[in-house]
Amino acid sequence: MSKIVIALGGNALGKSPYEQKEKVKKAASSICDFIEQGHDVIISHGNGPQVGMIKLGLDTAADLDSNIAHFPLPECTALSQGYIGYHLQNEISRELFARKINKGVVTLVTQIEVSPEDPAFSNPTKPIGAFYTQEEAYRLMAENPAAVYKEDAGRDWRLTVASPKPVNILEKDSINTLLNSGFVVIACGGGGIPVIKKAPGVYEGADAVIDKDFASAKLAAEADADFLYILTAVDRVILNYGKPNAKELIKLSSEEAQGYAREGHFAPGSMLPKVMAAIDFVSGRQGRSAVISSLEKAGQAAQGLSGTVITG
Amino acid sequence: MSKIVIALGGNALGKSPYEQKEKVKKAASSICDFIEQGHDVIISHGNGPQVGMIKLGLDTAADLDSNIAHFPLPECTALSQGYIGYHLQNEISRELFARKINKGVVTLVTQIEVSPEDPAFSNPTKPIGAFYTQEEAYRLMAENPAAVYKEDAGRDWRLTVASPKPVNILEKDSINTLLNSGFVVIACGGGGIPVIKKAPGVYEGADAVIDKDFASAKLAAEADADFLYILTAVDRVILNYGKPNAKELIKLSSEEAQGYAREGHFAPGSMLPKVMAAIDFVSGRQGRSAVISSLEKAGQAAQGLSGTVITG
Repeated sequence: MSKIVIALGGNALGKSPYEQKEKVKKAASSICDFIEQGHDVIISHGNGPQVGMIKLGLDTAADLDSNIAHFPLPECTALSQGYIGYHLQNEISRELFARKINKGVVTLVTQIEVSPEDPAFSNPTKPIGAFYTQEEAYRLMAENPAAVYKEDAGRDWRLTVASPKPVNILEKDSINTLLNSGFVVIACGGGGIPVIKKAPGVYEGADAVIDKDFASAKLAAEADADFLYILTAVDRVILNYGKPNAKELIKLSSEEAQGYAREGHFAPGSMLPKVMAAIDFVSGRQGRSAVISSLEKAGQAAQGLSGTVITG
Repeated sequence: MSKIVIALGGNALGKSPYEQKEKVKKAASSICDFIEQGHDVIISHGNGPQVGMIKLGLDTAADLDSNIAHFPLPECTALSQGYIGYHLQNEISRELFARKINKGVVTLVTQIEVSPEDPAFSNPTKPIGAFYTQEEAYRLMAENPAAVYKEDAGRDWRLTVASPKPVNILEKDSINTLLNSGFVVIACGGGGIPVIKKAPGVYEGADAVIDKDFASAKLAAEADADFLYILTAVDRVILNYGKPNAKELIKLSSEEAQGYAREGHFAPGSMLPKVMAAIDFVSGRQGRSAVISSLEKAGQAAQGLSGTVITG
């Protein structure tokens, strides 16, 4: 029996509560395959589409109605942890009951420390929330010089935040306590709520988004997991993606993965963070494996029939 | 050392993230007084103003922009659990660190089963979300016959939902596991996410709001707590409130409390649910006490210098 962290992509969760309720069924089924095999499972998940919608919605309403508050980004990630966690724990519990597995499932609101010295803060890259014209964006930046607005994919201007690396999961002890007591734990949703240490014991929310793959690798390391499964839209990591000489990778060492990454095989913001997170995790100690697989074929990946395995 | 459930009112939490961040400082200080005395503490909280704002905000935005989803009420409560839990756990941790108390604090996303047979479902009483004219309200009810809109306090029309009694806390085992391992646990936020059992193991969100005082009494019973502290805006329960013969109650039995409730001393939707929740809790087993006190004087109430104590 192994300890496994499963990282779900935010895109696998859908863009509305109705869509999410449907989509978590597929995720729950894949997750319960691992639990049924007897493994201890922690689940983390992305929240890109969800936190974007929540921030956009509350910003839109707050601009119209003074009874509604603007929610800073860390608070929006906290909102999304409650929302996504509820659907996941409800559906995984249902699936476990159907399989006659007696295990509790619970979501923990999770904060992750990031460093104010992280170079990401001087080069924000993650667009979030409402779309603005160039003129509006310049006005907003004049109003709040700390905020950065950038042109997003040649379309509109959006608030663009840093994506710093996770340093420390504040709730790691409660995650481990529940895991070691036999619970299925959902934690570090949306990459965790990013917080900066202002003084010993004092943490303040940061306008940032932690990449959920790096947060999941950190979570897997803190739980001393044996496996990190990063579930995404493709069955395997591919070299020369989209070219005639494209090649699916089945198994490789972290050194080989490093080499391919350096050669520019993996798209930033897409496959690159997954591969780098996998390398981070397996480099932590001997005997760890990271698997990058599609959600659909996660069960086959667990049997070595799909997915890309990266070893230490 | 005792096991204590502390129920915070949603009104003590503020109407915006900025206000909430300030207000949780006072709550954290009161809560840490109990922890410092060596008690095991679980915290529950209301979410009236917060869930109202979140639902109103997302509904307003969804009406304008098809990229934003309407969020059903159970999902809004889930959102509020993440948001309020984040601020509470962050601030309580800070305060514990300042007092040199080494204890983890964590929020659990919590679902509470309610019965579809609960008479509350045939008489919805809790107004939530956006305000409508009579004409709009009639149109919305024609569109969705399951939804009930009522005139709110002679002003506008609002979606009005049932407030059923809590039957079962789905995450009680993880709450107890963490509590027994020494953590401070925040659970059942906003009265919990109300769910109805559709089949064994299958729970579905219900358009309802569970009163946070009844949810807290249920939580205290499931944790087999010794004390339930219901913290509110007044120092003590008052008979003949607002009249010349008004009288503060210091200590009474559950039978006496029942009697006063029957005589109509307590306002429905305000003091009545607190007194009834207190009676529910202390009636569960010998040796339990419920205390109704102001947040400010919670520490004094713990020493018997303020608050109203209801015993079994």
